[in-house]
Amino acid sequence: MAYTTDRFVREVRVTPILITDPPLLNLSGVHQPLTPRTVVEVETEGGHVGLGETYGDTEYLTAIQRVAPRLAGTDVSRPTALRALIDDVLGHDDAAATAADVPASGLRGKRDLAKLKASVFSVFEVAYLDAWGRHLGVPVHALLGGRVRDRVDYSAYLFYKWAGHPGAEPDSWGAALDPQGVVEQARLFVERYGFGSIKLKGGAFEPDQEIAAMHALRAAFPDMPLRLDPNGAWSVETGLRVARELTGVLEYLEDPSAGVDAMSRIHAETHMPLATNMCVTGFDEVPDAFARNAVQVVLSDHHYWGGLRATLDLAALCRTYGVSVSMHSNTHLGISLAAMTHVAAAVPNLEHACDTHRPWQDEDVITRPHTFTGGAVEVSDAPGLGVELDTDALADLHRRWKDSDVRDRDDVAAMRAVNPDWTAPRLPRW
Amino acid sequence: MAYTTDRFVREVRVTPILITDPPLLNLSGVHQPLTPRTVVEVETEGGHVGLGETYGDTEYLTAIQRVAPRLAGTDVSRPTALRALIDDVLGHDDAAATAADVPASGLRGKRDLAKLKASVFSVFEVAYLDAWGRHLGVPVHALLGGRVRDRVDYSAYLFYKWAGHPGAEPDSWGAALDPQGVVEQARLFVERYGFGSIKLKGGAFEPDQEIAAMHALRAAFPDMPLRLDPNGAWSVETGLRVARELTGVLEYLEDPSAGVDAMSRIHAETHMPLATNMCVTGFDEVPDAFARNAVQVVLSDHHYWGGLRATLDLAALCRTYGVSVSMHSNTHLGISLAAMTHVAAAVPNLEHACDTHRPWQDEDVITRPHTFTGGAVEVSDAPGLGVELDTDALADLHRRWKDSDVRDRDDVAAMRAVNPDWTAPRLPRW
Repeated sequence: MAYTTDRFVREVRVTPILITDPPLLNLSGVHQPLTPRTVVEVETEGGHVGLGETYGDTEYLTAIQRVAPRLAGTDVSRPTALRALIDDVLGHDDAAATAADVPASGLRGKRDLAKLKASVFSVFEVAYLDAWGRHLGVPVHALLGGRVRDRVDYSAYLFYKWAGHPGAEPDSWGAALDPQGVVEQARLFVERYGFGSIKLKGGAFEPDQEIAAMHALRAAFPDMPLRLDPNGAWSVETGLRVARELTGVLEYLEDPSAGVDAMSRIHAETHMPLATNMCVTGFDEVPDAFARNAVQVVLSDHHYWGGLRATLDLAALCRTYGVSVSMHSNTHLGISLAAMTHVAAAVPNLEHACDTHRPWQDEDVITRPHTFTGGAVEVSDAPGLGVELDTDALADLHRRWKDSDVRDRDDVAAMRAVNPDWTAPRLPRW
Repeated sequence: MAYTTDRFVREVRVTPILITDPPLLNLSGVHQPLTPRTVVEVETEGGHVGLGETYGDTEYLTAIQRVAPRLAGTDVSRPTALRALIDDVLGHDDAAATAADVPASGLRGKRDLAKLKASVFSVFEVAYLDAWGRHLGVPVHALLGGRVRDRVDYSAYLFYKWAGHPGAEPDSWGAALDPQGVVEQARLFVERYGFGSIKLKGGAFEPDQEIAAMHALRAAFPDMPLRLDPNGAWSVETGLRVARELTGVLEYLEDPSAGVDAMSRIHAETHMPLATNMCVTGFDEVPDAFARNAVQVVLSDHHYWGGLRATLDLAALCRTYGVSVSMHSNTHLGISLAAMTHVAAAVPNLEHACDTHRPWQDEDVITRPHTFTGGAVEVSDAPGLGVELDTDALADLHRRWKDSDVRDRDDVAAMRAVNPDWTAPRLPRW
């Protein structure tokens, strides 16, 4: 009998960490040298430990820390039941939330209480599924309907970047500040990891420079699907112009402009497939966006859509409405990559290579970091997520957090360190 | 390690059976004395047997029998992967299907190849989940996110009926051919099973008689949610009239008229919540119906929506679009009731008591038939579906199938035995 009470939660550990991040440029500014993440360990009465990883910013960390003590005695086989508990701890009232306030730094779209709760649920759901899988000796994907593929394709995720952080040595990636630099970075990614799709984070330079970069990538990689993502930096007019210039070049254009109105118009007038992780980032945003054909590719992300099963829900919605599914990424380590890979393996209608920042991080909290072969990560059939926590590494990265005063990701502040006049750009920037 | 190769399928057994059915009246005619079901047993290399139950009509039985031999060596932990296999066996071409042909006897809406394949997938998915749960020693709901409730509420499912089948002795239920008979039947259901909601299958008599029955039920059971389901028998005008007459009486009105146009209009003009198991019966029908607000309650049914995980997908769609979820039933036995109960237990937004025909069947193929207490079935935490096959009963009911020439449910033919002029009513009937 595997359905014994030793599946109940004995203890939950929440560990904030800081991880290094290269100086990657985007609309808001630049990635800081250190960025926060939260690692969650859920230990069952039977001694199985499930892992989860998510944002480390104060808002998330605080919410996770508030929920964690309530989890003792809950049942890792019933993560769905946690939603009510999280509502109870974090509240139902969305009045305090900032739904209407979508700052340019909100690179993941709106921020409100529902989305915060979805993120908190997600990190625990992943940890519960991991613990439940370990308890049963089965992989997480086998708790999600089972994998429909052996390997999950990821995309090279290129960034404009400086050679190094201000005042620091250049990193091993080198600078990428023009089309040639972008192509060189792409060659590195393709050589090292075998990626077969390429995405460039745009919004960092004027549109013409980014258009030129995409043409350069097309010339250098004639057969690869290409994507460009300016994080909603452009006016509708600019979006229309870029979409037209890059028709036939891009697999899809991601968030050219902010909001359903702008996205709908750009698609209607250019037929360019538009992807999003800003315009549609929660289930409440789906109906209007789908009704107005604002997005043709939704970038799933279990971290904010509300977990692995919610990602399957989203995929079902997209299937039903004839919208494609791909996957978004933020800076993350191997626990998140494992979760992304398990759920991606179980989504029948995953039609594009997934985004991942993973190659940009040269440290991890798992004992055997994933490798990319032919641009893909193999789907693990080992119990749970199939990764083991590196407790020494976790302790080191937590010590770094304790020794630092960095508590939130703030790309604007990081840019201000170099350019004191820098402020969060108002949209549309171009 | 539970993820061993003894989870692979060794053998699949498909057993058509005939079960007794009382003379329940509906729009098409009357239930036959015997009606077909199919029982599927999926046995793993490890000797675990998973059960599934579905329609027994020739179209379904034949398709299931075509797929079954292809399942040896497949993996019960990966049911999602079966979709491709079923496509391969049953084909992708919908040309031969009868999508445009929705006869009045099509009490479950459209019939096409996609829906047939969803049904075939469903019976095997349930059996795989049962086998996988037994292999792991855990309940099916714990493979679906876990139960969010301990008990699943069902509704009394009343029918107009004759005292007995033509030429046969009266059955223990007695006749119900007028409002008083309906109320008496309701009392029996409430006394015996404790149901707290009541549904009447309508479409059997003129609308005024059925309106009178609902008023009589309201008078007899002042606090119970009430529903009426004429299976699309009415014109829009009749639907509007009944909706107005029963405003404040009904929890919801089910399929007053056929099709999205009619349903939209009736709801728009009366605000009566409309439920359906005819207008929206597959994912392809969702977008138009939701866009036009044709249905306010979707009746899920894992048998034709495509399984237990598809039922969760449907529930997610409904949550996203602000549509309620309830559950449809056809004549069924305990394997189906177990599957219905497990998935209902895992759906957070199940807002209404589920339909079930189960009390109308006095035989079963499981060793310990479910009991309804306070109108509910307790959610089992036993391995798999939590039911055991009664192999003697199965053999008896299969022998009955072999000894009979009944191969399809045909309510029209059953009525014709009494009324030789009876034909399938053309819609709208009233």
